Amino acid sequence: MTRTVYLNGDYLAEADAKVSIFDRGFIMADGVYEVTSVLDGKILEFKGHLARLARSLKELGIGNPLSDDEWLAIHRKLVELNKIDEGVIYLQVTRGNAGDRDFVYPPEDTPQTVVLFTQAKPGLADNPVAKTGIRVISVPDLRWSRRDIKTVQLLYPSMAKMEAKARGVDDAWLVEDGFVTEGTSNNVYIVKDGTIITRQLSTDILHGITRASLLRYAAEAQMQIVERPFTIEEAQAADEAFFTSASAFVLPVVEIDGVTLADGKVGPVATRLRELYIQESMKSAL
Amino acid sequence: MTRTVYLNGDYLAEADAKVSIFDRGFIMADGVYEVTSVLDGKILEFKGHLARLARSLKELGIGNPLSDDEWLAIHRKLVELNKIDEGVIYLQVTRGNAGDRDFVYPPEDTPQTVVLFTQAKPGLADNPVAKTGIRVISVPDLRWSRRDIKTVQLLYPSMAKMEAKARGVDDAWLVEDGFVTEGTSNNVYIVKDGTIITRQLSTDILHGITRASLLRYAAEAQMQIVERPFTIEEAQAADEAFFTSASAFVLPVVEIDGVTLADGKVGPVATRLRELYIQESMKSAL
Repeated sequence: MTRTVYLNGDYLAEADAKVSIFDRGFIMADGVYEVTSVLDGKILEFKGHLARLARSLKELGIGNPLSDDEWLAIHRKLVELNKIDEGVIYLQVTRGNAGDRDFVYPPEDTPQTVVLFTQAKPGLADNPVAKTGIRVISVPDLRWSRRDIKTVQLLYPSMAKMEAKARGVDDAWLVEDGFVTEGTSNNVYIVKDGTIITRQLSTDILHGITRASLLRYAAEAQMQIVERPFTIEEAQAADEAFFTSASAFVLPVVEIDGVTLADGKVGPVATRLRELYIQESMKSAL
Repeated sequence: MTRTVYLNGDYLAEADAKVSIFDRGFIMADGVYEVTSVLDGKILEFKGHLARLARSLKELGIGNPLSDDEWLAIHRKLVELNKIDEGVIYLQVTRGNAGDRDFVYPPEDTPQTVVLFTQAKPGLADNPVAKTGIRVISVPDLRWSRRDIKTVQLLYPSMAKMEAKARGVDDAWLVEDGFVTEGTSNNVYIVKDGTIITRQLSTDILHGITRASLLRYAAEAQMQIVERPFTIEEAQAADEAFFTSASAFVLPVVEIDGVTLADGKVGPVATRLRELYIQESMKSAL
Protein backbone atom coordinates (compact mmCIF):
# COMPACT_ATOMS: atom_id res chain seq x y z
CA MET A 1 0.00 0.00 0.00
CA THR A 2 1.37 3.39 -0.94
CA ARG A 3 1.26 6.02 1.78
CA THR A 4 -0.89 9.11 1.53
CA VAL A 5 1.04 12.16 2.70
CA TYR A 6 0.07 15.78 3.27
CA LEU A 7 1.74 18.63 1.39
CA ASN A 8 0.53 22.23 1.48
CA GLY A 9 -3.17 21.47 1.67
CA ASP A 10 -3.20 18.37 -0.50
CA TYR A 11 -3.35 14.67 0.35
CA LEU A 12 -1.08 12.96 -2.16
CA ALA A 13 0.44 9.59 -2.97
CA GLU A 14 3.90 9.67 -1.41
CA ALA A 15 5.67 9.46 -4.79
CA ASP A 16 3.90 12.65 -5.90
CA ALA A 17 4.88 14.74 -2.88
CA LYS A 18 7.62 17.08 -4.07
CA VAL A 19 8.92 20.48 -3.12
CA SER A 20 10.76 23.12 -5.12
CA ILE A 21 14.55 22.99 -5.23
CA PHE A 22 14.29 26.61 -4.01
CA ASP A 23 12.47 25.57 -0.86
CA ARG A 24 14.37 27.02 2.12
CA GLY A 25 14.20 23.60 3.72
CA PHE A 26 16.17 22.07 0.86
CA ILE A 27 18.83 24.72 0.25
CA MET A 28 19.21 26.28 3.74
CA ALA A 29 17.94 23.71 6.31
CA ASP A 30 15.51 26.46 7.27
CA GLY A 31 12.75 24.38 8.81
CA VAL A 32 11.54 22.67 11.96
CA TYR A 33 9.81 19.39 12.67
CA GLU A 34 7.91 17.30 15.19
CA VAL A 35 7.30 13.58 15.53
CA THR A 36 4.27 12.28 17.44
CA SER A 37 3.45 8.69 18.25
CA VAL A 38 0.26 6.80 17.59
CA LEU A 39 -0.93 3.97 19.87
CA ASP A 40 -4.26 2.24 19.39
CA GLY A 41 -4.90 4.70 16.57
CA LYS A 42 -4.66 7.65 18.95
CA ILE A 43 -2.14 10.50 18.96
CA LEU A 44 0.03 10.87 22.07
CA GLU A 45 1.12 14.17 23.64
CA PHE A 46 -0.45 16.20 20.86
CA LYS A 47 -0.69 19.45 22.82
CA GLY A 48 2.91 19.23 23.93
CA HIS A 49 4.19 18.70 20.41
CA LEU A 50 2.09 21.55 19.00
CA ALA A 51 3.33 23.87 21.75
CA ARG A 52 6.95 23.01 20.96
CA LEU A 53 6.31 23.44 17.23
CA ALA A 54 4.91 26.92 17.92
CA ARG A 55 7.99 27.74 20.01
CA SER A 56 10.45 26.48 17.36
CA LEU A 57 8.70 28.51 14.67
CA LYS A 58 8.65 31.62 16.85
CA GLU A 59 12.36 31.34 17.66
CA LEU A 60 13.11 31.34 13.92
CA GLY A 61 10.58 34.02 12.98
CA ILE A 62 8.55 31.61 10.85
CA GLY A 63 4.78 32.02 11.00
CA ASN A 64 2.62 29.12 12.20
CA PRO A 65 0.61 28.32 9.08
CA LEU A 66 -2.24 26.40 10.73
CA SER A 67 -4.46 26.51 13.82
CA ASP A 68 -4.29 23.81 16.48
CA ASP A 69 -7.57 22.37 15.21
CA GLU A 70 -6.28 22.28 11.65
CA TRP A 71 -3.09 20.52 12.73
CA LEU A 72 -5.12 17.95 14.64
CA ALA A 73 -7.46 17.36 11.72
CA ILE A 74 -4.54 16.64 9.38
CA HIS A 75 -2.91 14.29 11.90
CA ARG A 76 -6.16 12.39 12.36
CA LYS A 77 -6.88 12.20 8.65
CA LEU A 78 -3.42 10.76 7.93
CA VAL A 79 -3.87 8.18 10.70
CA GLU A 80 -7.19 7.19 9.15
CA LEU A 81 -6.10 7.19 5.50
CA ASN A 82 -2.99 5.13 6.26
CA LYS A 83 -4.70 2.90 8.82
CA ILE A 84 -2.08 3.60 11.48
CA ASP A 85 -2.67 1.62 14.64
CA GLU A 86 0.86 1.94 16.00
CA GLY A 87 3.35 4.31 14.43
CA VAL A 88 4.46 7.89 14.16
CA ILE A 89 3.40 11.07 12.39
CA TYR A 90 6.17 13.33 11.08
CA LEU A 91 5.50 17.03 10.59
CA GLN A 92 7.80 19.58 8.96
CA VAL A 93 7.38 23.30 8.37
CA THR A 94 9.90 25.30 6.34
CA ARG A 95 10.15 29.01 5.58
CA GLY A 96 8.83 28.10 2.14
CA ASN A 97 9.86 28.49 -1.47
CA ALA A 98 11.70 31.78 -1.85
CA GLY A 99 11.84 31.40 -5.64
CA ASP A 100 15.62 31.82 -5.55
CA ARG A 101 18.53 31.32 -3.16
CA ASP A 102 19.41 34.11 -0.73
CA PHE A 103 20.67 34.18 2.86
CA VAL A 104 18.13 36.97 3.45
CA TYR A 105 14.71 35.59 4.38
CA PRO A 106 11.97 35.81 1.75
CA PRO A 107 9.06 38.25 2.31
CA GLU A 108 6.96 37.42 5.36
CA ASP A 109 3.92 36.59 3.23
CA THR A 110 5.81 33.73 1.53
CA PRO A 111 3.71 30.63 2.27
CA GLN A 112 5.41 28.14 4.57
CA THR A 113 5.91 24.62 3.25
CA VAL A 114 3.93 22.09 5.32
CA VAL A 115 4.66 18.36 5.08
CA LEU A 116 3.22 15.53 7.15
CA PHE A 117 3.56 11.80 6.69
CA THR A 118 3.04 8.66 8.73
CA GLN A 119 5.29 5.70 9.45
CA ALA A 120 3.61 2.48 10.53
CA LYS A 121 5.50 0.83 13.41
CA PRO A 122 3.64 -2.29 14.51
CA GLY A 123 4.83 -3.38 17.95
CA LEU A 124 5.75 0.14 19.06
CA ALA A 125 4.31 -0.32 22.56
CA ASP A 126 5.51 -3.90 22.92
CA ASN A 127 9.08 -3.16 21.79
CA PRO A 128 11.36 -6.13 22.65
CA VAL A 129 14.22 -3.68 23.24
CA ALA A 130 12.46 -2.69 26.46
CA LYS A 131 13.46 -6.13 27.78
CA THR A 132 17.07 -6.14 26.57
CA GLY A 133 18.20 -2.51 26.36
CA ILE A 134 20.58 -0.92 23.90
CA ARG A 135 24.34 -0.34 23.79
CA VAL A 136 25.77 3.11 23.13
CA ILE A 137 29.09 4.81 22.47
CA SER A 138 29.98 8.41 23.26
CA VAL A 139 31.01 10.88 20.57
CA PRO A 140 31.76 14.62 20.74
CA ASP A 141 28.68 16.84 20.38
CA LEU A 142 29.48 18.87 17.27
CA ARG A 143 25.98 20.24 16.63
CA TRP A 144 24.99 23.90 16.48
CA SER A 145 24.31 25.61 19.82
CA ARG A 146 20.51 26.06 19.63
CA ARG A 147 19.43 22.46 20.17
CA ASP A 148 16.30 23.71 21.92
CA ILE A 149 14.98 24.61 18.46
CA LYS A 150 13.91 21.42 16.70
CA THR A 151 15.38 22.15 13.28
CA VAL A 152 15.97 19.76 10.40
CA GLN A 153 19.74 20.21 10.77
CA LEU A 154 20.10 16.52 11.52
CA LEU A 155 23.24 15.72 9.61
CA TYR A 156 25.46 15.32 12.68
CA PRO A 157 23.00 13.19 14.66
CA SER A 158 22.74 11.04 11.53
CA MET A 159 26.54 10.81 11.28
CA ALA A 160 26.77 9.87 14.97
CA LYS A 161 24.16 7.16 14.51
CA MET A 162 26.17 5.74 11.60
CA GLU A 163 29.35 5.85 13.71
CA ALA A 164 27.54 3.84 16.39
CA LYS A 165 26.42 1.26 13.83
CA ALA A 166 29.93 1.06 12.37
CA ARG A 167 31.21 0.28 15.87
CA GLY A 168 28.63 -2.45 16.36
CA VAL A 169 26.31 -0.71 18.83
CA ASP A 170 22.87 0.89 18.67
CA ASP A 171 23.23 4.60 19.29
CA ALA A 172 25.56 7.40 20.39
CA TRP A 173 25.50 9.74 23.37
CA LEU A 174 26.82 13.20 22.65
CA VAL A 175 29.39 14.76 24.98
CA GLU A 176 30.31 18.43 25.29
CA ASP A 177 32.76 19.99 27.76
CA GLY A 178 32.99 16.65 29.54
CA PHE A 179 29.26 16.19 30.12
CA VAL A 180 26.60 14.23 28.26
CA THR A 181 24.14 16.47 26.42
CA GLU A 182 21.73 13.92 24.91
CA GLY A 183 21.44 11.01 22.49
CA THR A 184 21.30 11.39 18.71
CA SER A 185 17.53 11.88 18.83
CA ASN A 186 16.56 11.41 22.47
CA ASN A 187 17.01 12.69 26.02
CA VAL A 188 19.14 10.55 28.35
CA TYR A 189 19.00 9.63 32.04
CA ILE A 190 20.87 7.64 34.65
CA VAL A 191 19.61 6.12 37.89
CA LYS A 192 21.73 5.95 41.05
CA ASP A 193 20.44 4.73 44.42
CA GLY A 194 16.88 5.19 43.18
CA THR A 195 17.35 8.80 42.03
CA ILE A 196 16.71 9.69 38.37
CA ILE A 197 19.38 12.07 37.06
CA THR A 198 18.98 13.98 33.78
CA ARG A 199 20.49 17.14 32.36
CA GLN A 200 18.54 20.33 33.06
CA LEU A 201 16.87 22.22 30.21
CA SER A 202 18.87 24.89 28.37
CA THR A 203 19.73 25.73 24.77
CA ASP A 204 22.15 22.77 24.92
CA ILE A 205 19.46 20.10 24.60
CA LEU A 206 16.09 19.46 23.05
CA HIS A 207 13.20 20.14 25.38
CA GLY A 208 11.74 16.68 25.03
CA ILE A 209 7.97 16.40 25.23
CA THR A 210 8.34 12.82 26.42
CA ARG A 211 10.96 14.03 28.93
CA ALA A 212 8.63 16.68 30.39
CA SER A 213 5.72 14.30 30.74
CA LEU A 214 7.82 11.47 32.14
CA LEU A 215 9.37 13.69 34.80
CA ARG A 216 5.89 14.86 35.80
CA TYR A 217 4.57 11.29 36.02
CA ALA A 218 7.66 10.20 37.98
CA ALA A 219 7.29 13.09 40.43
CA GLU A 220 3.61 12.26 40.91
CA ALA A 221 4.69 8.69 41.67
CA GLN A 222 7.00 10.06 44.42
CA MET A 223 10.20 9.16 42.58
CA GLN A 224 13.33 11.25 43.22
CA ILE A 225 14.54 13.38 40.31
CA VAL A 226 17.65 15.55 40.03
CA GLU A 227 18.20 17.72 36.96
CA ARG A 228 21.95 18.23 36.45
CA PRO A 229 24.65 17.26 33.94
CA PHE A 230 26.53 13.97 34.30
CA THR A 231 29.67 12.50 32.75
CA ILE A 232 30.15 9.25 30.83
CA GLU A 233 32.13 7.91 33.82
CA GLU A 234 29.25 8.62 36.20
CA ALA A 235 26.84 6.98 33.77
CA GLN A 236 29.04 3.89 33.52
CA ALA A 237 28.94 3.59 37.32
CA ALA A 238 25.16 4.09 37.53
CA ASP A 239 22.64 1.41 38.49
CA GLU A 240 20.61 2.01 35.33
CA ALA A 241 20.48 4.24 32.28
CA PHE A 242 17.72 4.93 29.78
CA PHE A 243 16.55 7.33 27.12
CA THR A 244 13.25 8.88 26.10
CA SER A 245 11.84 10.09 22.79
CA ALA A 246 8.41 10.51 21.28
CA SER A 247 8.74 7.32 19.25
CA ALA A 248 10.72 5.18 21.76
CA PHE A 249 8.87 6.26 24.92
CA VAL A 250 11.32 4.93 27.56
CA LEU A 251 14.04 2.44 26.58
CA PRO A 252 16.93 1.12 28.69
CA VAL A 253 20.66 1.47 28.00
CA VAL A 254 22.80 -1.40 29.31
CA GLU A 255 26.28 -0.59 27.95
CA ILE A 256 28.18 2.69 27.49
CA ASP A 257 31.53 2.78 25.66
CA GLY A 258 32.01 -0.94 26.20
CA VAL A 259 31.29 -0.83 29.93
CA THR A 260 28.34 -2.91 31.09
CA LEU A 261 26.08 -1.13 33.59
CA ALA A 262 25.52 -3.01 36.86
CA ASP A 263 24.64 -6.62 35.98
CA GLY A 264 23.88 -5.79 32.34
CA LYS A 265 20.16 -6.45 32.76
CA VAL A 266 17.35 -3.96 32.34
CA GLY A 267 16.64 -2.40 35.73
CA PRO A 268 13.40 -1.86 37.64
CA VAL A 269 13.29 1.94 37.35
CA ALA A 270 13.44 2.03 33.55
CA THR A 271 10.91 -0.80 33.37
CA ARG A 272 8.53 0.94 35.72
CA LEU A 273 8.92 4.31 33.99
CA ARG A 274 8.14 2.79 30.59
CA GLU A 275 4.93 1.25 31.89
CA LEU A 276 4.04 4.45 33.72
CA TYR A 277 4.70 6.60 30.67
CA ILE A 278 2.61 4.53 28.26
CA GLN A 279 -0.23 4.19 30.75
CA GLU A 280 -0.34 7.90 31.65
CA SER A 281 0.23 9.33 28.18
CA MET A 282 -2.57 7.18 26.76
CA LYS A 283 -5.00 8.95 29.11
CA SER A 284 -4.63 12.20 27.16
CA ALA A 285 -4.28 10.61 23.69
CA LEU A 286 -6.47 12.21 21.02
CA MET B 1 12.78 34.80 -19.01
CA THR B 2 12.36 31.68 -16.90
CA ARG B 3 15.57 29.99 -15.83
CA THR B 4 16.55 26.57 -17.01
CA VAL B 5 17.93 24.51 -14.14
CA TYR B 6 19.54 21.08 -13.91
CA LEU B 7 18.04 18.30 -11.81
CA ASN B 8 19.25 14.69 -11.92
CA GLY B 9 20.09 14.59 -15.61
CA ASP B 10 17.32 16.85 -16.88
CA TYR B 11 17.31 20.48 -17.94
CA LEU B 12 14.01 21.90 -16.67
CA ALA B 13 12.12 25.16 -16.35
CA GLU B 14 12.81 26.33 -12.78
CA ALA B 15 9.17 25.97 -11.72
CA ASP B 16 9.25 22.28 -12.65
CA ALA B 17 12.38 21.42 -10.63
CA LYS B 18 11.15 19.56 -7.58
CA VAL B 19 12.55 16.96 -5.21
CA SER B 20 10.86 14.38 -3.04
CA ILE B 21 9.86 15.34 0.50
CA PHE B 22 11.91 12.26 1.48
CA ASP B 23 15.06 13.71 -0.04
CA ARG B 24 17.78 13.65 2.65
CA GLY B 25 18.54 17.26 1.75
CA PHE B 26 15.03 18.32 2.72
CA ILE B 27 14.46 16.31 5.90
CA MET B 28 18.03 15.93 7.26
CA ALA B 29 20.13 18.75 5.74
CA ASP B 30 22.24 15.91 4.38
CA GLY B 31 23.84 17.65 1.43
CA VAL B 32 26.69 19.86 0.29
CA TYR B 33 27.01 22.69 -2.18
CA GLU B 34 29.34 24.91 -4.16
CA VAL B 35 28.95 28.32 -5.76
CA THR B 36 31.15 29.37 -8.67
CA SER B 37 31.25 32.74 -10.37
CA VAL B 38 30.95 33.56 -14.04
CA LEU B 39 32.70 36.56 -15.60
CA ASP B 40 32.62 37.27 -19.34
CA GLY B 41 30.66 34.02 -19.66
CA LYS B 42 33.57 32.01 -18.22
CA ILE B 43 33.64 29.96 -15.02
CA LEU B 44 36.17 31.01 -12.37
CA GLU B 45 38.18 28.65 -10.14
CA PHE B 46 36.37 25.60 -11.49
CA LYS B 47 39.04 23.10 -10.48
CA GLY B 48 39.21 24.45 -6.94
CA HIS B 49 35.45 24.24 -6.45
CA LEU B 50 35.28 20.68 -7.85
CA ALA B 51 38.13 19.62 -5.57
CA ARG B 52 36.34 21.04 -2.53
CA LEU B 53 33.07 19.41 -3.60
CA ALA B 54 34.84 16.06 -3.81
CA ARG B 55 36.30 16.61 -0.33
CA SER B 56 32.94 17.59 1.21
CA LEU B 57 31.28 14.53 -0.30
CA LYS B 58 34.09 12.26 0.89
CA GLU B 59 33.91 13.61 4.45
CA LEU B 60 30.22 12.71 4.56
CA GLY B 61 30.54 9.37 2.78
CA ILE B 62 28.43 10.53 -0.15
CA GLY B 63 29.54 9.32 -3.57
CA ASN B 64 30.49 11.84 -6.24
CA PRO B 65 27.83 11.22 -8.90
CA LEU B 66 29.61 12.81 -11.86
CA SER B 67 33.04 13.07 -13.43
CA ASP B 68 34.89 16.38 -13.63
CA ASP B 69 34.12 16.59 -17.33
CA GLU B 70 30.42 15.95 -16.72
CA TRP B 71 30.30 18.64 -14.03
CA LEU B 72 31.97 21.10 -16.38
CA ALA B 73 29.62 20.27 -19.24
CA ILE B 74 26.57 20.96 -17.06
CA HIS B 75 28.03 24.24 -15.78
CA ARG B 76 28.77 25.37 -19.31
CA LYS B 77 25.40 24.33 -20.68
CA LEU B 78 23.57 26.27 -17.92
CA VAL B 79 25.69 29.35 -18.64
CA GLU B 80 24.78 29.04 -22.30
CA LEU B 81 21.06 28.27 -21.86
CA ASN B 82 20.58 31.12 -19.39
CA LYS B 83 22.89 33.51 -21.25
CA ILE B 84 24.95 34.24 -18.14
CA ASP B 85 27.63 36.86 -18.78
CA GLU B 86 28.16 37.77 -15.12
CA GLY B 87 26.65 35.72 -12.32
CA VAL B 88 26.99 32.55 -10.29
CA ILE B 89 26.28 28.84 -10.67
CA TYR B 90 24.93 27.04 -7.61
CA LEU B 91 25.49 23.29 -7.27
CA GLN B 92 24.02 20.99 -4.61
CA VAL B 93 24.42 17.27 -4.04
CA THR B 94 22.39 15.41 -1.41
CA ARG B 95 22.48 11.82 -0.23
CA GLY B 96 19.31 11.37 -2.28
CA ASN B 97 15.76 10.21 -1.78
CA ALA B 98 15.75 7.48 0.83
CA GLY B 99 12.04 6.77 0.27
CA ASP B 100 11.37 7.30 3.97
CA ARG B 101 12.84 9.11 6.97
CA ASP B 102 15.59 7.43 8.99
CA PHE B 103 18.71 8.68 10.76
CA VAL B 104 20.49 5.68 9.25
CA TYR B 105 21.85 6.42 5.78
CA PRO B 106 20.03 4.80 2.83
CA PRO B 107 21.81 2.03 0.88
CA GLU B 108 24.98 3.18 -0.88
CA ASP B 109 23.46 2.64 -4.31
CA THR B 110 20.77 5.24 -3.62
CA PRO B 111 21.22 7.85 -6.39
CA GLN B 112 22.42 11.22 -5.13
CA THR B 113 20.24 14.23 -5.89
CA VAL B 114 22.05 16.71 -8.12
CA VAL B 115 20.80 20.28 -8.55
CA LEU B 116 22.41 23.16 -10.39
CA PHE B 117 21.04 26.59 -11.22
CA THR B 118 22.36 29.96 -12.29
CA GLN B 119 21.83 33.44 -10.88
CA ALA B 120 22.50 36.35 -13.24
CA LYS B 121 24.40 39.14 -11.46
CA PRO B 122 25.14 41.92 -13.93
CA GLY B 123 27.87 44.22 -12.57
CA LEU B 124 29.51 41.46 -10.51
CA ALA B 125 33.05 42.54 -11.45
CA ASP B 126 32.29 46.26 -11.28
CA ASN B 127 30.56 46.08 -7.87
CA PRO B 128 30.15 49.63 -6.45
CA VAL B 129 30.61 48.19 -2.94
CA ALA B 130 34.31 47.77 -3.82
CA LYS B 131 34.55 51.59 -3.64
CA THR B 132 32.55 52.09 -0.41
CA GLY B 133 32.94 48.92 1.66
CA ILE B 134 30.41 47.30 3.97
CA ARG B 135 29.60 47.61 7.67
CA VAL B 136 29.43 44.53 9.90
CA ILE B 137 28.46 43.55 13.43
CA SER B 138 29.82 40.63 15.42
CA VAL B 139 27.61 37.79 16.67
CA PRO B 140 28.49 34.55 18.48
CA ASP B 141 29.36 31.67 16.15
CA LEU B 142 26.70 29.07 16.99
CA ARG B 143 27.22 26.80 13.97
CA TRP B 144 28.18 23.14 14.08
CA SER B 145 31.87 22.35 14.44
CA ARG B 146 32.68 21.00 10.96
CA ARG B 147 32.59 24.22 9.00
CA ASP B 148 35.25 22.84 6.67
CA ILE B 149 32.52 20.68 5.12
CA LYS B 150 30.36 22.91 2.92
CA THR B 151 26.95 21.60 3.97
CA VAL B 152 23.52 23.15 3.38
CA GLN B 153 23.13 23.70 7.14
CA LEU B 154 22.89 27.44 6.54
CA LEU B 155 20.17 28.36 8.98
CA TYR B 156 22.46 30.13 11.45
CA PRO B 157 24.41 32.11 8.83
CA SER B 158 21.01 33.14 7.47
CA MET B 159 19.84 34.18 10.97
CA ALA B 160 23.06 36.16 11.50
CA LYS B 161 22.61 37.93 8.18
CA MET B 162 19.06 38.89 9.21
CA GLU B 163 20.34 40.14 12.57
CA ALA B 164 22.82 42.35 10.72
CA LYS B 165 20.06 43.76 8.52
CA ALA B 166 17.83 44.35 11.55
CA ARG B 167 20.67 46.37 13.08
CA GLY B 168 21.09 48.45 9.94
CA VAL B 169 24.35 46.99 8.64
CA ASP B 170 25.38 44.67 5.84
CA ASP B 171 26.72 41.46 7.33
CA ALA B 172 27.89 39.71 10.49
CA TRP B 173 31.28 38.37 11.59
CA LEU B 174 31.09 35.26 13.72
CA VAL B 175 33.07 35.08 16.96
CA GLU B 176 34.01 31.96 18.92
CA ASP B 177 36.13 31.80 22.09
CA GLY B 178 36.99 35.47 21.62
CA PHE B 179 38.28 35.18 18.05
CA VAL B 180 36.67 35.85 14.69
CA THR B 181 36.03 32.67 12.70
CA GLU B 182 34.57 34.04 9.46
CA GLY B 183 31.66 36.01 7.98
CA THR B 184 28.21 34.56 7.35
CA SER B 185 29.31 33.25 3.95
CA ASN B 186 32.86 34.47 3.48
CA ASN B 187 36.40 34.41 4.84
CA VAL B 188 37.61 37.56 6.60
CA TYR B 189 40.93 39.43 6.81
CA ILE B 190 42.50 42.47 8.41
CA VAL B 191 45.51 44.51 7.32
CA LYS B 192 47.98 46.08 9.76
CA ASP B 193 51.16 47.86 8.73
CA GLY B 194 50.90 46.25 5.30
CA THR B 195 50.54 42.67 6.59
CA ILE B 196 47.45 40.66 5.65
CA ILE B 197 46.15 38.69 8.66
CA THR B 198 43.58 35.88 8.30
CA ARG B 199 42.63 32.89 10.39
CA GLN B 200 44.49 29.67 9.58
CA LEU B 201 42.61 26.71 8.10
CA SER B 202 41.04 24.17 10.47
CA THR B 203 37.63 22.56 10.94
CA ASP B 204 36.53 25.94 12.41
CA ILE B 205 36.23 27.69 9.04
CA LEU B 206 35.38 27.06 5.44
CA HIS B 207 38.41 26.41 3.27
CA GLY B 208 37.61 29.19 0.84
CA ILE B 209 38.61 28.62 -2.76
CA THR B 210 38.82 32.37 -3.25
CA ARG B 211 40.86 32.58 -0.03
CA ALA B 212 43.39 29.99 -1.24
CA SER B 213 43.85 31.62 -4.62
CA LEU B 214 44.03 35.14 -3.22
CA LEU B 215 46.72 34.20 -0.69
CA ARG B 216 48.71 32.59 -3.49
CA TYR B 217 48.40 35.65 -5.74
CA ALA B 218 49.30 37.94 -2.82
CA ALA B 219 52.35 35.86 -1.93
CA GLU B 220 53.45 35.91 -5.57
CA ALA B 221 53.10 39.70 -5.45
CA GLN B 222 55.50 39.74 -2.45
CA MET B 223 52.82 40.82 0.03
CA GLN B 224 53.20 39.79 3.69
CA ILE B 225 50.63 37.27 4.99
CA VAL B 226 50.18 35.89 8.50
CA GLU B 227 47.65 33.13 9.15
CA ARG B 228 46.41 33.38 12.74
CA PRO B 229 43.19 34.20 14.62
CA PHE B 230 42.34 37.81 15.51
CA THR B 231 39.82 39.47 17.81
CA ILE B 232 37.14 42.04 17.03
CA GLU B 233 39.18 44.61 19.00
CA GLU B 234 42.26 43.96 16.86
CA ALA B 235 40.13 44.22 13.72
CA GLN B 236 38.69 47.54 14.88
CA ALA B 237 42.22 48.88 15.31
CA ALA B 238 43.41 47.59 11.93
CA ASP B 239 44.29 49.76 8.94
CA GLU B 240 41.90 47.83 6.67
CA ALA B 241 39.56 44.85 6.69
CA PHE B 242 38.00 42.86 3.88
CA PHE B 243 36.31 39.60 3.04
CA THR B 244 36.47 37.10 0.21
CA SER B 245 33.94 34.70 -1.31
CA ALA B 246 33.39 33.07 -4.68
CA SER B 247 30.65 35.55 -5.60
CA ALA B 248 32.09 38.70 -3.94
CA PHE B 249 35.75 38.16 -4.88
CA VAL B 250 37.37 40.72 -2.51
CA LEU B 251 35.26 43.41 -0.83
CA PRO B 252 36.26 45.91 1.87
CA VAL B 253 34.84 46.25 5.39
CA VAL B 254 34.91 49.80 6.78
CA GLU B 255 33.02 49.47 10.10
CA ILE B 256 32.90 46.73 12.77
CA ASP B 257 30.44 46.91 15.65
CA GLY B 258 29.95 50.63 15.14
CA VAL B 259 33.68 51.42 15.07
CA THR B 260 34.97 53.00 11.87
CA LEU B 261 38.25 51.51 10.66
CA ALA B 262 41.04 54.06 10.13
CA ASP B 263 39.58 56.97 8.11
CA GLY B 264 36.51 54.98 7.04
CA LYS B 265 37.60 54.83 3.42
CA VAL B 266 38.43 51.75 1.40
CA GLY B 267 42.16 51.12 1.71
CA PRO B 268 44.85 50.41 -0.89
CA VAL B 269 45.48 46.76 0.06
CA ALA B 270 41.85 45.62 -0.39
CA THR B 271 41.61 47.60 -3.63
CA ARG B 272 44.81 46.11 -5.00
CA LEU B 273 43.86 42.57 -3.93
CA ARG B 274 40.47 42.82 -5.66
CA GLU B 275 42.10 43.90 -8.92
CA LEU B 276 44.76 41.23 -8.55
CA TYR B 277 42.22 38.51 -7.80
CA ILE B 278 39.95 39.27 -10.76
CA GLN B 279 42.89 39.61 -13.13
CA GLU B 280 44.62 36.41 -12.03
CA SER B 281 41.52 34.20 -11.63
CA MET B 282 40.34 35.15 -15.12
CA LYS B 283 43.52 33.62 -16.52
CA SER B 284 42.34 30.12 -15.58
CA ALA B 285 38.62 30.69 -16.25
CA LEU B 286 36.97 27.95 -18.30
